[in-house]
Amino acid sequence: MTVLEQAKLAKQAAPSLAVAGTDAKNKALAAIAEALDAHRADILAANGIDLAEAVKNDMPSAMRDRLVLTDERIDGMIQGVRDVIALDDPIGEFISMSMRPNGLQVGKKRAPLGVVAIIYESRPNVTVDSAVLCLKAGNAVVLRGGREAFHTNQALMSIMREALATTEIPADVMHLVQDTSRESATTLMGLTGYIDVLIPRGGAGLIRSVVEHAKVPVIETGTGVCHIYVDKSADLEMGARIIENAKCSRPSVCNAAETLLVHQDVAVAFLPMAKARLDAYKVELRGDAETQKILGDCVVAATEEDYGVEFLDYILAVRVVADLDEALAHIRVHGSGHSECIVTEDYTSAQRFLHEVDAAAVYVNASTRFTDGGMFGLGAEIGISTQKMHARGPMGLQELTCTKFVVYGSGQVR
Amino acid sequence: MTVLEQAKLAKQAAPSLAVAGTDAKNKALAAIAEALDAHRADILAANGIDLAEAVKNDMPSAMRDRLVLTDERIDGMIQGVRDVIALDDPIGEFISMSMRPNGLQVGKKRAPLGVVAIIYESRPNVTVDSAVLCLKAGNAVVLRGGREAFHTNQALMSIMREALATTEIPADVMHLVQDTSRESATTLMGLTGYIDVLIPRGGAGLIRSVVEHAKVPVIETGTGVCHIYVDKSADLEMGARIIENAKCSRPSVCNAAETLLVHQDVAVAFLPMAKARLDAYKVELRGDAETQKILGDCVVAATEEDYGVEFLDYILAVRVVADLDEALAHIRVHGSGHSECIVTEDYTSAQRFLHEVDAAAVYVNASTRFTDGGMFGLGAEIGISTQKMHARGPMGLQELTCTKFVVYGSGQVR
Repeated sequence: MTVLEQAKLAKQAAPSLAVAGTDAKNKALAAIAEALDAHRADILAANGIDLAEAVKNDMPSAMRDRLVLTDERIDGMIQGVRDVIALDDPIGEFISMSMRPNGLQVGKKRAPLGVVAIIYESRPNVTVDSAVLCLKAGNAVVLRGGREAFHTNQALMSIMREALATTEIPADVMHLVQDTSRESATTLMGLTGYIDVLIPRGGAGLIRSVVEHAKVPVIETGTGVCHIYVDKSADLEMGARIIENAKCSRPSVCNAAETLLVHQDVAVAFLPMAKARLDAYKVELRGDAETQKILGDCVVAATEEDYGVEFLDYILAVRVVADLDEALAHIRVHGSGHSECIVTEDYTSAQRFLHEVDAAAVYVNASTRFTDGGMFGLGAEIGISTQKMHARGPMGLQELTCTKFVVYGSGQVR
Repeated sequence: MTVLEQAKLAKQAAPSLAVAGTDAKNKALAAIAEALDAHRADILAANGIDLAEAVKNDMPSAMRDRLVLTDERIDGMIQGVRDVIALDDPIGEFISMSMRPNGLQVGKKRAPLGVVAIIYESRPNVTVDSAVLCLKAGNAVVLRGGREAFHTNQALMSIMREALATTEIPADVMHLVQDTSRESATTLMGLTGYIDVLIPRGGAGLIRSVVEHAKVPVIETGTGVCHIYVDKSADLEMGARIIENAKCSRPSVCNAAETLLVHQDVAVAFLPMAKARLDAYKVELRGDAETQKILGDCVVAATEEDYGVEFLDYILAVRVVADLDEALAHIRVHGSGHSECIVTEDYTSAQRFLHEVDAAAVYVNASTRFTDGGMFGLGAEIGISTQKMHARGPMGLQELTCTKFVVYGSGQVR
């Protein structure tokens, strides 16, 4: 089936899902959770095919980490579905309702978006997460995963659609695009009238392509060039713990840190502390002249391009800055508007950083790795928006809805 | 100055406006209100040039109505600025703040979008409304008005910028594009990195062009093909009053009705009542065969294209439908997702209409002309979104903001 044919089926199926009750949607989700549990062997077998392909193609280890499924990760997927069942249904909620002076009752009510398209890369858990979140929010979904995870994604989608066939929700509310070429993604971006919102989840190349080609409304996600700024007044031990965690706990994800900025007054004391922790993970440091002077030859000279790159690997750019203003200016130029952190004990520095940094999430004294729907209490996550419109930062069920005004009158005219 | 030069100046000026306090912004707005009042003669003189041009070019009367300024309309503009001063500043408001189990305090705070671009057509009040709403919400703005209102818009923008020059807010937070060619609009649509959000306000042609060319994030507005459906159980006198108001009170605006749908059981009784009221405005009726049978030769035969067109004039398409389902189906096919109304005394019909119609505003027993920021209690309006993302329906100050997550930690790592 072509992308267009799938999008048409999704659009046809969307209205019945839009008016489906919470019970019907939760029963469908429960059927999906059970089916995933019952078909673990099929999922792992399909994943094995993709992994063999990845090894053959010398995929870097940080990338392979995104692709691999284990029984624990399948447990995580299934638990994710059960977590979504437990979440409140956002549809039908009235955000407001008030009486106007002329007696009109004007309310604002949450409604589904319609058909959501998602373009993503390696991680197969995105297939399940996206499909079930869209379902709970009353949206049909067209998923276009990466070539490298195709067999895994296909197995997951077949299991979910078969599970739906036993429920009130039609299987056609979810689709996996069969063609993983660049063209299928471009086609999807142009399907005005069929796709209500497109969410690209992936690297800078994908985002650029979407900005270039998309005619449907888009929520940009993902590219994270996150900074940790260690201020003059920082608790240095805390700073070292935070940079270790932000860089090394999972370098392949968008909320991992890519650049460390250090106030000049604490650079001599702090940089060796940080290095000791980062060495345990064999992190490659790319620093400015000041950093090289302090840490020595083990630091590669950073080029201008090293600042502002999403390494997604055990590589960290480092710069010593004169003060908070220089740190803010560096982030303004090189940040991607994802997550930014200051480590400080100074009240005014903390407040200035929170107020002036223009990013989806701004932190004082915590790892940027917390930028995540679950960690922020949204219950689940469909992606992390780095644009300002509609949603910014981790997006949960509410961000998969729109609103409509509902007006109860008694014959009012204007 | 070119569009790009203006956008660059706006982007440079935006951060200082983003951190400006409410007092500074309100003082700037007060200076604008006073300046508009002091320069009425200049505004009317500039408007006179545009109107002379319009008459020479045989602009239709409904279009000329959008362009013309009078002392009363200038009063309205000035009052609009004062109303915006009185509105709460949305910036800095925390929408939420809660403690996560690990002790992180996670909050969501309103922040400015950055630089907003607006492309619009005849109505010069949009120049002032847009500029002051954007200013209050902390956004710089680049306005690209229509050629037919250029002299008026230019006079208004000069007055506003001169007023700002006496305040803490830099004049470069607002710009009027000097080139009113189609190319300047297309250029604006492509200024990724300078424009954070583009809001086109205008007809179907403009919207199509934006969907085709825009690379920056867009909020579509304006095209309104609004329906009034008079149900079997309707209070017919109320129905006649509502269609008269929705069609005739200001036919050139997007919340005016374009199509009347009538349940077959009440068509014979209702259509003559409606016609009697519409005749007072010389409304041209374009109806289906059933309507012609009931009302006679005065009804022009409607073509398929008449359903789904925004006439913006004293023309109304009419169709007799078998029941509510046929009305819902008609609206699904021909509606533009703006404002839709059912006139009914039947509870279930009313609830079904509100639930099933997919539009920015759905009404029971009131004129669609109420779809307006002021009427809905938003205090002011920057446009009416007909898309689902970010904002849907009338947009006020809140819709000119984004949010950012603010996280207070104490050394948490993940």
